[in-house]
Amino acid sequence: MDLKDLQLKIEEYEEKEVTLEGWVRNNRNQSNFGFIDFNDGTTLKNFQLVYDNSLDDFEKISKIHVGSALRVKGIVVKSEGSGQSHELKVKEIIVLGDCPEDYPIQPKRHTREFLREKAYLRPRTNLFNAVFRIRSVAAYAIHKYFNENNYVYVHTPLITGNDGEGAGQMFQVTTLDLDKIASSGKVEIEKDFFGKKVGLAVTGQLEGETYALAYKKIYTFGPTFRAENSNTKTHASEFWMIEPEIAFCDLNGDMDIMEDMLKYVVKYVLENAKDEMEFCDKFVEKGLIEKLTKLINSKFVRKTHEEVITILKEAKVDWEFKPEYGEDIAKEHEKYITEYFDGPVFITNWPKDIKAFYMKQNEDGKTVAAVDLEVPGAGELMGGSQREDDYDKLINRMKELGVPLENLDWYTNLRKFGGCYHSGFGMGFERLLIYLTGVDNIRDVIPYPRTPNNCEY
Amino acid sequence: MDLKDLQLKIEEYEEKEVTLEGWVRNNRNQSNFGFIDFNDGTTLKNFQLVYDNSLDDFEKISKIHVGSALRVKGIVVKSEGSGQSHELKVKEIIVLGDCPEDYPIQPKRHTREFLREKAYLRPRTNLFNAVFRIRSVAAYAIHKYFNENNYVYVHTPLITGNDGEGAGQMFQVTTLDLDKIASSGKVEIEKDFFGKKVGLAVTGQLEGETYALAYKKIYTFGPTFRAENSNTKTHASEFWMIEPEIAFCDLNGDMDIMEDMLKYVVKYVLENAKDEMEFCDKFVEKGLIEKLTKLINSKFVRKTHEEVITILKEAKVDWEFKPEYGEDIAKEHEKYITEYFDGPVFITNWPKDIKAFYMKQNEDGKTVAAVDLEVPGAGELMGGSQREDDYDKLINRMKELGVPLENLDWYTNLRKFGGCYHSGFGMGFERLLIYLTGVDNIRDVIPYPRTPNNCEY
Repeated sequence: MDLKDLQLKIEEYEEKEVTLEGWVRNNRNQSNFGFIDFNDGTTLKNFQLVYDNSLDDFEKISKIHVGSALRVKGIVVKSEGSGQSHELKVKEIIVLGDCPEDYPIQPKRHTREFLREKAYLRPRTNLFNAVFRIRSVAAYAIHKYFNENNYVYVHTPLITGNDGEGAGQMFQVTTLDLDKIASSGKVEIEKDFFGKKVGLAVTGQLEGETYALAYKKIYTFGPTFRAENSNTKTHASEFWMIEPEIAFCDLNGDMDIMEDMLKYVVKYVLENAKDEMEFCDKFVEKGLIEKLTKLINSKFVRKTHEEVITILKEAKVDWEFKPEYGEDIAKEHEKYITEYFDGPVFITNWPKDIKAFYMKQNEDGKTVAAVDLEVPGAGELMGGSQREDDYDKLINRMKELGVPLENLDWYTNLRKFGGCYHSGFGMGFERLLIYLTGVDNIRDVIPYPRTPNNCEY
Repeated sequence: MDLKDLQLKIEEYEEKEVTLEGWVRNNRNQSNFGFIDFNDGTTLKNFQLVYDNSLDDFEKISKIHVGSALRVKGIVVKSEGSGQSHELKVKEIIVLGDCPEDYPIQPKRHTREFLREKAYLRPRTNLFNAVFRIRSVAAYAIHKYFNENNYVYVHTPLITGNDGEGAGQMFQVTTLDLDKIASSGKVEIEKDFFGKKVGLAVTGQLEGETYALAYKKIYTFGPTFRAENSNTKTHASEFWMIEPEIAFCDLNGDMDIMEDMLKYVVKYVLENAKDEMEFCDKFVEKGLIEKLTKLINSKFVRKTHEEVITILKEAKVDWEFKPEYGEDIAKEHEKYITEYFDGPVFITNWPKDIKAFYMKQNEDGKTVAAVDLEVPGAGELMGGSQREDDYDKLINRMKELGVPLENLDWYTNLRKFGGCYHSGFGMGFERLLIYLTGVDNIRDVIPYPRTPNNCEY
């Protein structure tokens, strides 16, 4: 049985015999008795095994190494010690797999940097066990939210001939033999697997729009890639992204959904990864649960980019980057504005020259119906827009920005074949996890992170 | 409001005014009145709009093109016609987006080949609307099943330096400039993005095992790639795969989970995509629902490879490929054996020489604890195994098969650091969808399929 299920119904098992399988987190003993901190990984909370010298193999048990895999039979009893309501009085222990004394994960505090080097063992520690379970619970919450609201989950392609929104540099995907290219001196791209140059998708939005115009409400949730040579705490070369797209939805409706979804997911995680969130609150970011609870209960403010710049300009702050109408805002501005409103802020109607070609042009001729959500302690958590649904305006904007038209006729055609006003947004899943867990490095919320010059496992 | 929600509570809306937004599937009219088959894509079932010449713009409405996007206001009334219980008596129609007369998706039957060429429009047809909603519902069922059973969802990496199980040819991923390689005559792989040669994962199993030995029960559900130049109905270069991995689980336990999961997912889809499944039963594969219902109620048979070969040898069949002990079985054998047992068959204990290095070697020295699930009408739907947990046996087998040891020490170390008996399996998601929908070509169950020389959209 799973330890999690035992813990949920521990009263029912009192004085009953159970058999468990799991691993030794710690083994402490004296001459007559000993304790094993035991866990099978289905829960964050260890279970205490108590053994004494009435057992034939007491000596052997007292020498079981940390990290070993066990099968244990015993009686669930009330615990007299503090720290747990119940424990297991051991009748029999079988070591299924030993663990050497130089096992890297010992019952002490390891630095995150050390554990990053042991990425295949780190989910056995409390911290990473919590983080990656939260990752799993949050992923489920996202699927659950969209499923309950009539969305269709769409798997957009990863290998693509488009360079998408031009959002970032792409990895090339090929079956050509590079050594052969070097020796022959020629690139026969027509002999490549797909007969042309292809790469890894930086977004699924454009394909997502095609499905939104069939199903009304869709979302993607899948891996995305960026070949950018940036070594920061928040950038990875491979990460997961959620991209909902909704037909018959304007920018206000888009913001309603962004707010509703975020609150739902945060609430679900707080309720369904309670132990893990309490652990993070205690050991990673003090006040984490309070921060998240406040988010759930807040009403997100909606301000235009222009209004925000005015507030920033009037602020008595010695900015590193001076805020300007018509320009992007910096991290320090994001921070100020969420503190100013003491909560999440949607910033809308951005200068069109700093935003993507597909965003709906406002009537002022200067701005587009784009939105960024700024969240206290997280910065920009999501970005979205109403999409340009006027065929001519879209084509003109693509020409202005040098977006190649010939391969995107299927995309532009959406404006001709029963086009309608529609909107969508994107959320980086790891950015959400950083916010949810308080862990500040993206390398610590991805099981096996990929960054420049780093592709281990 | 979503049409789906209206249809679910249609009685409540009787004689009430509602506003809907969606698309015209058909527009039929006579001199005094007309009907629009209307759908917003949230449901397979069209809703009938009735308009008559009491409306000022009757003439205009009667000319609205198929495919156009509408906003319609009207009163929900009981329908006097057959085919629907209720319909909408139109008060006002606004055309949000016109659609030209040469719009490819007309209200008639199109071949699947034609629609494959219009992949961005095909979800607007009944067939593909059904298929891709079933895809979404099935994906949700999978997440729900594992979530309810204490599994942790793990995102294993897509870009990898391993060639995994050696299961298939890999795509290379690079940021090197191929033209530059051709002109310079050298491949400076150390200058590539990750400083070494990397490719797209063919499996997440090995990384999955590392997490199973931390969480006990995990699953992956993500894209997988094969650079194989095969143009068949069942092969795609990019597809989604589910790979559960369970610690403290032997081959029998593995089969229990495979059977339980499959039945759960099939049942969930039958219950939660009822209209879509009825559509497929009627228009794609007659008897589909009966076939699936039978699966749910059957007890899967468990036979060894040797027993199966004996049955095949004794069969009075003129085989194209003669069945042999120690060898793989062919499609014709798979078919025969599921018909022989009139239901799904687990075939266990395969000859080790035709299976992967990581499978647990049985005591006979000849076979491994592998299993394939053969399903009537689908062939091999899943494959799994108990994993070799003996460090020395694993290393020896890797050496025998020429699997490079140096990059997989993290994998082999799992057998040293609290190793335990554990098992897992893999299921190709599209193979499941082919089985669930009756659609026989993998290109028709993937939104934008990738196959050799084909990477459109």
